[in-house]
Amino acid sequence: MRTMVGIVGGGPAGLLLSHLLHLQGIDSVVLEARGREELEAEIRAGVLEHGTTELLVETGVGDRMRKEGAVHHGVNLQFDGRRERIDLEGLTGKTITLYGQHEVVKDLIRTRLDAGGEVLFRAKGLGLQDLESEEPKVRFVKGDEEYELRCDFVVGTDGFHGVSREAFPEGARAEYGRRYPFGWFGILVEGPPSTEELIYALHERGFALVSTRSPEIQRLYFQCDPDDDASNWSDDRIWTEMHARLDTDDGWTVNEGKIIQKNVVQMRSFVCEPMRHGRLFLAGDAAHIVPPTGAKGMNLAVADVRVLSRGLAEFYRSGSTGVLDNYSEICLKRVWKASRFSWWMTSMLHRFDGDNAFQYRMQVAELDYVTGSRAAATSLAENYVGLPMEWREDPEAIARTTEGMDA
Amino acid sequence: MRTMVGIVGGGPAGLLLSHLLHLQGIDSVVLEARGREELEAEIRAGVLEHGTTELLVETGVGDRMRKEGAVHHGVNLQFDGRRERIDLEGLTGKTITLYGQHEVVKDLIRTRLDAGGEVLFRAKGLGLQDLESEEPKVRFVKGDEEYELRCDFVVGTDGFHGVSREAFPEGARAEYGRRYPFGWFGILVEGPPSTEELIYALHERGFALVSTRSPEIQRLYFQCDPDDDASNWSDDRIWTEMHARLDTDDGWTVNEGKIIQKNVVQMRSFVCEPMRHGRLFLAGDAAHIVPPTGAKGMNLAVADVRVLSRGLAEFYRSGSTGVLDNYSEICLKRVWKASRFSWWMTSMLHRFDGDNAFQYRMQVAELDYVTGSRAAATSLAENYVGLPMEWREDPEAIARTTEGMDA
Repeated sequence: MRTMVGIVGGGPAGLLLSHLLHLQGIDSVVLEARGREELEAEIRAGVLEHGTTELLVETGVGDRMRKEGAVHHGVNLQFDGRRERIDLEGLTGKTITLYGQHEVVKDLIRTRLDAGGEVLFRAKGLGLQDLESEEPKVRFVKGDEEYELRCDFVVGTDGFHGVSREAFPEGARAEYGRRYPFGWFGILVEGPPSTEELIYALHERGFALVSTRSPEIQRLYFQCDPDDDASNWSDDRIWTEMHARLDTDDGWTVNEGKIIQKNVVQMRSFVCEPMRHGRLFLAGDAAHIVPPTGAKGMNLAVADVRVLSRGLAEFYRSGSTGVLDNYSEICLKRVWKASRFSWWMTSMLHRFDGDNAFQYRMQVAELDYVTGSRAAATSLAENYVGLPMEWREDPEAIARTTEGMDA
Repeated sequence: MRTMVGIVGGGPAGLLLSHLLHLQGIDSVVLEARGREELEAEIRAGVLEHGTTELLVETGVGDRMRKEGAVHHGVNLQFDGRRERIDLEGLTGKTITLYGQHEVVKDLIRTRLDAGGEVLFRAKGLGLQDLESEEPKVRFVKGDEEYELRCDFVVGTDGFHGVSREAFPEGARAEYGRRYPFGWFGILVEGPPSTEELIYALHERGFALVSTRSPEIQRLYFQCDPDDDASNWSDDRIWTEMHARLDTDDGWTVNEGKIIQKNVVQMRSFVCEPMRHGRLFLAGDAAHIVPPTGAKGMNLAVADVRVLSRGLAEFYRSGSTGVLDNYSEICLKRVWKASRFSWWMTSMLHRFDGDNAFQYRMQVAELDYVTGSRAAATSLAENYVGLPMEWREDPEAIARTTEGMDA
């Protein structure tokens, strides 16, 4: 089997890349270990940056998002018993859209299949070979058969636990990261939303988050022990905790409803440097993980594949590897910035074991300052709606940083 | 002995308060444990916020500062081998002035004494009494004699280790704080400045700071073990460390010179709540300590006594205790903001034991973001030049927060 670009992993990063390449006449094959139904049912993040929605609309996969997604003009920060709003649109001119990642995945799969794209489900990547040659290969299994996909380029979009990153030879990458000493206990709730816009809350008992999935389904979270088990929490105990952390001094209270799903999410930060080896390019969670507090995960994946599709298009059009050679540098600038934002939001909004009362007061002071200073609120807002897709891209600076590198 | 306002401590807070009260016809006595020469020789901070210089000029004690102080329009942040400038004036319209705290003290002492003010040197406060009555008292010793100073109000400006804060009865205050696991190794150097504007540097080996005391004297610091002893460091070893942390990729190097003083400064954050009990008011270091990274210490003291002088003037003019009753709330808003800024600058610019490579990359990413985003740079700048003297002062909000308090 042969294609131009072999894509290992059919999440939003891989599917969107395949779509963007198709629009420029570049063939690809997407290998996805799970079945279509499982993939389309996996509920993950749901906050799309301004630039992400623009890209989806401009490339023709944004119609349903525009109809069904909810445009949000602000977010709320809650602390010290009060709630302050960050006016995202007023501060940046941009908005965010709440639209589940699995809905984006559904739209992309349908678009790819309608266009005759090759998306192989239940096709599990086994390993990558010949990455430094002009014909790298992906071994994968589908059904009981093993196959080899030969291509010009391989893109690893198979997530943190995928095989792609492991294909870097010994010593060819550095990894940076930390696990956070807490998780998020998440519930899906049938019933009317408690609020129009998201609420990020710091409480002495820990973080909590109010979000919505649809007009009928609320998505609520609170900080928990990372090793806690959802079955330890009765509905009563969950609501007691939610009220303790979320209800405000002025009488606002979180709406209860029927809990239809509970789960515990662990949290980590992770960055792999570089994001490319030979003709293998990593994108999305395969290369970097952020804690969900900044709502950046899928948006980073979108930014990666946008750069990569531009680089591949340039290569097939002119033979130039200019963008491809700088892929890692271009992406990592944004990745480190989003990692910083996610780490900062996480640090500001969670209680850490061993922190004393002074540290808590620093967090409250930071929230008070951020919501009270136009400059600081703008700083939060510009990150939340999304920094420019290619942050401070300066060809001269990129040339400087890559001098002496093997291109 | 009797006066209207008894001031325990003759640092910049106590002396400036005495001066401000004098301008409004209110008598005070300042008790200072040290002798005048010792006080005037004590070298401390030297960065005056915009509002601090304005207040000194407006109240007639700013002439020498205007002549001899150095107005700075920006500061530099250095990281990852490069230096980026924060254009304080361009971002905020305001500047800072480098002028030693001991020079401010000299100017205030001369002004007070020329006006016939009572500043008692070598007068050591022993204890405070009757703080809840209308005539609180300060016991102090001068020479071999003990005295009692009776007054309408007592102000404690006797620093972190002074007697004033200890006079709060059991349970009448809460204290918040932390010690940082590092100190600053500081040197005074004869020789031309290395730079016109301050340089705050993060290096893998730790923080370093380049400042100037005068056109002939440099002030340099680097992060060290808090229990280190200055005598452990030969001049050679000091310069090796300075070069390692400060020299940049483009060939800039720190100017060496004759080291005329070495010392190690420990670092802490500390806030006492409230800042008032009965007729005792705390101001400056007696109520709060910040690490020096944000250059906020003396400026906070100035902001405190500005509020207090306004409150006392209102009381003597009209009998109203409106401002005095809100003194603690008004000051603490600014104190917590400056504590946050100082803690944030300290956290961003120092290496902490146990931090891993990811944390270091977060710090570099934060510096890269702060120097690259106009909003974030403005946020740093507005804090560095000084938040408004009475931050977000909102009479209704103050009334709300003090409802139910005994005024």
